[in-house]
Amino acid sequence: MDKNRSSGVDIGLIHYPVINKIGETIGSAVTNLDIHDIARAAKTYGIDDYYIVTPYEDQRQLVTEICDHWLTGHGAGYNPARKQALELVTIMESVEKLITRVTQKRGQMPLLVTTSATVEEKTLSYGACRRKIKADVPLLLFFGTAHGLDQSVVRRADYILPPITGGTGYNHLSVRSAVSIILDRLMGRTNDHAE
Amino acid sequence: MDKNRSSGVDIGLIHYPVINKIGETIGSAVTNLDIHDIARAAKTYGIDDYYIVTPYEDQRQLVTEICDHWLTGHGAGYNPARKQALELVTIMESVEKLITRVTQKRGQMPLLVTTSATVEEKTLSYGACRRKIKADVPLLLFFGTAHGLDQSVVRRADYILPPITGGTGYNHLSVRSAVSIILDRLMGRTNDHAE
Repeated sequence: MDKNRSSGVDIGLIHYPVINKIGETIGSAVTNLDIHDIARAAKTYGIDDYYIVTPYEDQRQLVTEICDHWLTGHGAGYNPARKQALELVTIMESVEKLITRVTQKRGQMPLLVTTSATVEEKTLSYGACRRKIKADVPLLLFFGTAHGLDQSVVRRADYILPPITGGTGYNHLSVRSAVSIILDRLMGRTNDHAE
Repeated sequence: MDKNRSSGVDIGLIHYPVINKIGETIGSAVTNLDIHDIARAAKTYGIDDYYIVTPYEDQRQLVTEICDHWLTGHGAGYNPARKQALELVTIMESVEKLITRVTQKRGQMPLLVTTSATVEEKTLSYGACRRKIKADVPLLLFFGTAHGLDQSVVRRADYILPPITGGTGYNHLSVRSAVSIILDRLMGRTNDHAE
């Protein structure tokens, strides 16, 4: 991929609506390393924008302050590579506003793709999703924090990627790990996987 | 893979000797989320043991306390899945002692494999490494914290996996992301990558 060319792919990290341990709809708190690790993975794989979605004003303020430290504060000079990654971050109030924004940016509705820790309907394989990206279909990938996306978001999705399995039956990756693996599967250089 | 069967693969997260920003040999501090995220990824992909290597007594004590909270303390009842992951953690004082321990456990010297953010000699492709794992060659994978493994560890390695690239030239993943992606490439279900 040309490093100056748009990949057509955006990601959204959703803090509301998500579910808690017992399946109730909640809003989760932003985790500092989710901002950093996912921005670094996004920059590695050529994601256009990394949207952090939370309806809570104090949480949006926190993300702004953290990013500002690395974009214009002391961190910008100390670690320019981190600056490049955090430049991808945009903070949004809701899933609805995020979809509207990306639709405006792309000039068309993006394909909404979520992930799920369980097998769902509307499954799209990693290979098929990869081919859509190569065919320049604009894509908005949602990732849930806490115990995953609320069903209201899952229902809005056009497609759902299969859960990440390692053949062990253990299915409890951090969202940071899950995003990294999924971006590698969708946008990593294919020959890295093979020979 | 049978979930009760050994994969023959161990990983070591090295906090000394590693290098800092300007290439000096240093010891780094343990990061709480490195313990959790990497243990969860290790459990997902069937790693046998996750060794955390630090020569600093206070750091080893810290790791012990964190793990104990989830293994036998309040966390064990609150989150049994986390307990299962952290059961893989063993704390070691040095790379040397780690190699000795794994050699004793396996009854033979494991293949020492490191990763590098730059292209090095002794490169082993992900596909070739995957085949060694399938052929039951015992493997010990080293991951460096801070700005990567010191050359004294890289020199000891039998093989070096290529840097993870996303086609953008940006090469600054967190160690948590890098471990997750590498375990997926080496031990993830192949059909997840393809169709």
